[in-house]
Amino acid sequence: MLMKDAKKGPTEEIRRLAKAEGADAGALSALIAKGLVAAPRNSGRSFEGRAVGKLVSTKVNANVGTSKDYDDCDDEVKKAQIAVQYGADAVMDLSTGKDRDTVRKRLARELEVPLGTVPIYHAARKRRNAVDMTSDDLFNSVREHAKDGVDFVTVHCGVNRNALGRLKNDPRLLNIVSRGGALTMAWMLHNEKDNPFYEEFEYLLEIAREYDLTLSLGDGMRPGCMADASDRPEFMEIITLGELVRRCREADVQSIVEGPGHVPLDEVEMTVKAMKKLTGDAPLYLLGPLVTDIAPGYDHVVGAIGGSLAGMAGADFLCIVTPSEHLALPTADDIRDGVVVGKIAAHVADTVKEGQRERSREMDRRMSQARCDLDWKAQMSLAVDPERAEHIRGTRMTEGDTCSMCSDLCAIKLVKDALKSGKI
Amino acid sequence: MLMKDAKKGPTEEIRRLAKAEGADAGALSALIAKGLVAAPRNSGRSFEGRAVGKLVSTKVNANVGTSKDYDDCDDEVKKAQIAVQYGADAVMDLSTGKDRDTVRKRLARELEVPLGTVPIYHAARKRRNAVDMTSDDLFNSVREHAKDGVDFVTVHCGVNRNALGRLKNDPRLLNIVSRGGALTMAWMLHNEKDNPFYEEFEYLLEIAREYDLTLSLGDGMRPGCMADASDRPEFMEIITLGELVRRCREADVQSIVEGPGHVPLDEVEMTVKAMKKLTGDAPLYLLGPLVTDIAPGYDHVVGAIGGSLAGMAGADFLCIVTPSEHLALPTADDIRDGVVVGKIAAHVADTVKEGQRERSREMDRRMSQARCDLDWKAQMSLAVDPERAEHIRGTRMTEGDTCSMCSDLCAIKLVKDALKSGKI
Repeated sequence: MLMKDAKKGPTEEIRRLAKAEGADAGALSALIAKGLVAAPRNSGRSFEGRAVGKLVSTKVNANVGTSKDYDDCDDEVKKAQIAVQYGADAVMDLSTGKDRDTVRKRLARELEVPLGTVPIYHAARKRRNAVDMTSDDLFNSVREHAKDGVDFVTVHCGVNRNALGRLKNDPRLLNIVSRGGALTMAWMLHNEKDNPFYEEFEYLLEIAREYDLTLSLGDGMRPGCMADASDRPEFMEIITLGELVRRCREADVQSIVEGPGHVPLDEVEMTVKAMKKLTGDAPLYLLGPLVTDIAPGYDHVVGAIGGSLAGMAGADFLCIVTPSEHLALPTADDIRDGVVVGKIAAHVADTVKEGQRERSREMDRRMSQARCDLDWKAQMSLAVDPERAEHIRGTRMTEGDTCSMCSDLCAIKLVKDALKSGKI
Repeated sequence: MLMKDAKKGPTEEIRRLAKAEGADAGALSALIAKGLVAAPRNSGRSFEGRAVGKLVSTKVNANVGTSKDYDDCDDEVKKAQIAVQYGADAVMDLSTGKDRDTVRKRLARELEVPLGTVPIYHAARKRRNAVDMTSDDLFNSVREHAKDGVDFVTVHCGVNRNALGRLKNDPRLLNIVSRGGALTMAWMLHNEKDNPFYEEFEYLLEIAREYDLTLSLGDGMRPGCMADASDRPEFMEIITLGELVRRCREADVQSIVEGPGHVPLDEVEMTVKAMKKLTGDAPLYLLGPLVTDIAPGYDHVVGAIGGSLAGMAGADFLCIVTPSEHLALPTADDIRDGVVVGKIAAHVADTVKEGQRERSREMDRRMSQARCDLDWKAQMSLAVDPERAEHIRGTRMTEGDTCSMCSDLCAIKLVKDALKSGKI
């Protein structure tokens, strides 16, 4: 188990992770041992892992997966490949279609990045009515996924009686928008029992230890709009997740904490800092966050605004949002756009992140040098998406070495010429 | 003159502006009188104006204009119309092609929003070599534009000997990237004289008074990359612009201050607050700002990140950046994408802006209510870009009233069903 091994000092895997981050292996090992950095990898899979958390670069996850209406395994595997090609550091398979087992197994075989799933979706499909799933269905789904090689699972352990009590006392416009959270709530009300993932958390830890599975503690209570943001039910769940992080660490199980979702611009910093504090600085994995509700079709951009700001405040791991969020299952192009924009947000966050600032700023500096030199080849190779940059430039060229925006009135050229003939 | 008239209390025009902003007419009148809000409109043009500054909503400008290589007047007029159609509150014509006079005159006739220009581009084209333009060429260009009905002009008055002295002592990777700034610098070095727009600022004020022309004090010294940001030459220029704002106010000439450009994420707030302070809280007009240099092709997204954050810190007016920034002259589609994303940033800023917070949050609340009701028609009509949202949804429909992302496992439906049968 990585977390246990890390306590004895850097393993080979940790040395490789440290090298990729430009970090000291001893320091990284200590952070993993304390649970401040997670590097999800199932003991049954082998690939170059990705470290998430303190001092390491901000990571990006892309969600793929079939739904009842769009149930094509090949499509989803292709989307996952595109996500990785454009820089995703992890992929989550959220399949709920008929072919869901095939999608998961293929991704576990083919992907070279951490693979995550949400086993409750699987459990919910085992019975005709989702609320009829049993506690065993839930835990068996987790075990099944772990056996298949899944590296991290989202478990909505914080949706418990205590959280629902807080929701009752603090009504929302949109009650619960997390699918896993909604399934858990529906199950709890129907069965008049508390959440098995909360009540029998030890059992989850047992399975996790067996496969070195990372637990991503899901935010089933995350608010679904600006109006519901930062409320007492949300904070109640964070408190619970913080307690569970502590139990994970005691069991040498790696854990990540998931966060919203929808957060107004002036509450992003507070939310991130509160979550970090209440969860013992666990690696923080955000969905977006979205800072407005009115931009369907552009939620990837809205997520990049929130993600950059959240990264500055301390978020470690950004789940990309695609242009089709709130509207439809994403296409491969949507995934591509979402990943590129998510990578931009992660880079922007890294330009101010402790441990990553210098490396990231150097990337910006090199691009600026290429601009100064009017070296277009270098500019393209340094671009976050060379293909798109080249396409835009290529379709509207100018004579000479400038671009068609300013043509002969290029400021960079004007200044160079002026400095040749005169002195400041 | 609006500023002078405002001192006597709300005019008819100010009452209409106040209504559009949900503001008190008396309060708005006082803000205009003090120069804390500007509403650019040439005395020779009539249209419903736009207020920029304290308490009013964050505005968005789109740049259009020919270059030497792409010199089609119709194209640029069409781009301006598209910009306004998608919500631009102002348009600047930066034409430098042969047909530049026609573009400007047509826009002044046809546009129903404030029109801005940069007269030094015009002056620079009057002579074979831009550095041979005379001081008269500069002022005559301003007068010519004002006569044509231009509502605000960018004048780079802060690029003076003092600023160039600071640049000499604090070298940059990219010296000057503002076209107007570069032309001014080249002229100063060639002619061994100070900037006429600085030295003879009184003459500018005279012309401005004649046409009630708003002066947008340009940031010719704005840094062109992360590495150069927030340096002494930039702040020297801001100090000068602050002094000129004061002179504008004494002359009842409306003024706006322009700002960067390229600003690292953790310097956006500082930059905006320093600019506001040093310029007596003049309406602040930013270009972006861009928070990374490595994303050509996605600078509209990068600008939305910086613009949202800058808006939260106090910026009032956002100049949109298109996907083709740093690469080529934008197409009509680029302008469209840039404007929509710019409007999103402006809305996000308004959700935290004094005087606009409640109105903006109500837009988000209504969208969330429509989501709660699974009312897709309402969701589309409330979207910042209904056309794109409908297109995405339309191409990947599901049966029933959910979307194809979750299909039957829609959290909103699950929770509704659960609450029908059980109680929290």
